[in-house]
Amino acid sequence: MRMYDIIEKKRDGGALSDAEIGFFVDGYTSGRIPDYQASALLMAIYLRGMTPEETRLLTMHMMNSGDVMDLSSIPGATVDKHSTGGVGDKTSLAVVPMLAAMDPGHTFVAKMTGRGLGHTGGTVDKLESIPGFDTALTDDAFLSCVREHGASIIGQTGNLVPADKLIYALRDVTATVSCIPLIASSIMSKKLAAGSGCILLDVKVGSGAFMKTVPEAIELAQAMVEIGEGMGRRVKALITNMDRPLGRNIGNALEVAEVIETLQRRGPADLTHEAIMLASDLLELTGRFDHNEAEARARRVVEDGSALAKLKEIVAAQGGDVRVIDDPSLLPQASLHETLCAPCTGFVAHIDTERVGVASAELGGGRLTLNDEIDHSCGITLLKNYGDPVECGEPIAVAHANDASKLTCGLATLAGAYTYGPKEPPVEPLLYASVTAAGVAYA
Amino acid sequence: MRMYDIIEKKRDGGALSDAEIGFFVDGYTSGRIPDYQASALLMAIYLRGMTPEETRLLTMHMMNSGDVMDLSSIPGATVDKHSTGGVGDKTSLAVVPMLAAMDPGHTFVAKMTGRGLGHTGGTVDKLESIPGFDTALTDDAFLSCVREHGASIIGQTGNLVPADKLIYALRDVTATVSCIPLIASSIMSKKLAAGSGCILLDVKVGSGAFMKTVPEAIELAQAMVEIGEGMGRRVKALITNMDRPLGRNIGNALEVAEVIETLQRRGPADLTHEAIMLASDLLELTGRFDHNEAEARARRVVEDGSALAKLKEIVAAQGGDVRVIDDPSLLPQASLHETLCAPCTGFVAHIDTERVGVASAELGGGRLTLNDEIDHSCGITLLKNYGDPVECGEPIAVAHANDASKLTCGLATLAGAYTYGPKEPPVEPLLYASVTAAGVAYA
Repeated sequence: MRMYDIIEKKRDGGALSDAEIGFFVDGYTSGRIPDYQASALLMAIYLRGMTPEETRLLTMHMMNSGDVMDLSSIPGATVDKHSTGGVGDKTSLAVVPMLAAMDPGHTFVAKMTGRGLGHTGGTVDKLESIPGFDTALTDDAFLSCVREHGASIIGQTGNLVPADKLIYALRDVTATVSCIPLIASSIMSKKLAAGSGCILLDVKVGSGAFMKTVPEAIELAQAMVEIGEGMGRRVKALITNMDRPLGRNIGNALEVAEVIETLQRRGPADLTHEAIMLASDLLELTGRFDHNEAEARARRVVEDGSALAKLKEIVAAQGGDVRVIDDPSLLPQASLHETLCAPCTGFVAHIDTERVGVASAELGGGRLTLNDEIDHSCGITLLKNYGDPVECGEPIAVAHANDASKLTCGLATLAGAYTYGPKEPPVEPLLYASVTAAGVAYA
Repeated sequence: MRMYDIIEKKRDGGALSDAEIGFFVDGYTSGRIPDYQASALLMAIYLRGMTPEETRLLTMHMMNSGDVMDLSSIPGATVDKHSTGGVGDKTSLAVVPMLAAMDPGHTFVAKMTGRGLGHTGGTVDKLESIPGFDTALTDDAFLSCVREHGASIIGQTGNLVPADKLIYALRDVTATVSCIPLIASSIMSKKLAAGSGCILLDVKVGSGAFMKTVPEAIELAQAMVEIGEGMGRRVKALITNMDRPLGRNIGNALEVAEVIETLQRRGPADLTHEAIMLASDLLELTGRFDHNEAEARARRVVEDGSALAKLKEIVAAQGGDVRVIDDPSLLPQASLHETLCAPCTGFVAHIDTERVGVASAELGGGRLTLNDEIDHSCGITLLKNYGDPVECGEPIAVAHANDASKLTCGLATLAGAYTYGPKEPPVEPLLYASVTAAGVAYA
């Protein structure tokens, strides 16, 4: 088999076989196939597309390019959740302890997650703002934490889907990122390698998301559901609104504090609503409960404090300082704060959510390049969100930083993210649609 | 400017600007742009195409990537001829001395040419079968040979269009060769850098050619004519038949011998006809003579022996042994010969011309890879060509080799190139069409 013939076949619109896709993935991962042939194939895939079967095969070969987590020692259903990346999206931090509390001894969350880059945050970074929290457990420690406490969250291990790291890095410099089969296989290869039987995908749409329109988000969701179901997993995708930041806080320690508030029943309505929706959908996916019962359990663990207790238990098990759960002021605090005020009277008509994420990164709370250091205390507290009425001069957001020039820079970006209008803008739903193997259900 | 944005623009079907194309060509030639970005762009160009203006700009930037031959010291019209590559196509060897003899002191041929690869031969290799012939003259020696004798033929100098060498090598391993704008810019950048004012392109069509159908050959011809005219040259393209080898001999010394025979009025009809057609079209392109006068001069220089005398003069000027012109048996001769016989009675219904070229290379007469050594004496003499009647057991071709295993291999390939039928196949024209700035004229 020759890589040349594989490129030529895809160039001419053909469907690649199992053997051909395996030859490419294995050959590129091992360094036998050079970058220039891989990038020619990726561009041909970008412009010619892939069938669902090709996409599934690509995902399978990528998954098998490295270690695959073995969750067979977990005595029950295993669930996982993935978000395509948003601004202020801290739902994983809330949903993981909720699920562990919702069906203890039967439903488990063994979650491997990533770091933030660009305008979106990463769950690993957020957890590391809790002093002592260890996101690099060994596989054994990770699995015993899951068995004992019902959940654990760690960073992706070094050899999880090495093919994706290499292919993604090449796509990133050859304008072949925004391609549904390549995005779907990249995400799903990692989710499948992480081993859970039930997977809920949160596909974000809007100004703060990678997918800018609902139809393209649905197309991506369908591709991912089809891959996962084809590999014997139960998969559902929610298409959710990222045309506004989720909740009030953006930045690592600030988001942990907001999750704690949410599990204390004092969180913002949108975040609370989305966390309950995701947790109940995931529990329902296990097949152990119907929707009503799953949702009742999700509400109950927030109401009765058992999700908060479970968060404390997980933090303790992973070496974190549990005192922050009772007193979030013990989380890292920024030394500089500046308030942004409304320049006119009216309503918040639009928020360029990606720009809010970039502003948080500029303040020190994120990475604009892979080598940037994160300052866990930095970020943004939004006092006004999409649709809120504002008076001229009224505070709309607070920027948190430890460096005066970063504060100036981030604040300017944040100011430019807001658009005002004279009338209240239409109410936008949090959920647009859900996608399962059975089809698309619009909300 | 970033290469990423250029790839993205072409990926999305945009037309690249002068500055963008220059950035790519200069950056890739200098090594600043990596192979993997160049190959992604080439695949995007392959699948999205290029406008005529983009193709012209690509050609211009490629031409300017290295040395451009300065023919201003030549006191008259300069003409050049390019064939897209055929099997047994030795017309350049005949046409160059013919033109030098047709309008001495006024029309000059300063020809830079290439080596053979795969199933097609190269004029430089053919000339090097003449003992002593120097195809690596300095520019000064080349130009003074042109001025003094009316013509000279040398190999391409090291720094002629370095961008083409690099881009072609990358296309060759990324399945992006067969793309009209890329083929046209590759050919024309070299022809334009070679400096002649009048260019005749011989675009071959058929089983022995790169272009397999007349419409795609016309498309390529139009692209090349448009480029050349857009750069201020006079350009014409002929679409000619390569569904059968041209003449009787394939292989370097064998082809030189056949050219000598042709200039002695003893050559095969097809080769003689094509040489006269090309030479008269080229002279007409200078604008110095109308078609009838140009053709009369082409016929006359063959009839009166002045083209043969001119060939002898050029061979002498470039250090070659002129005795081979009078006695072609002094050319390298192979030690082994084997005759291929017809396996049935009927007609030669089809010749897979590419396969004949490969057979000649296998016998030792060509290069199957860049590093192969050529044995100038090896090749094939065809006794029967397309349409000829054959008796079962009658000799149809002779293979010439110096190695028994190569002889066996090449002979087997040659045998497989012939197809026989019970009826005389239709007569195919040598010329299908001609293309100029004024349009396409079908023959």
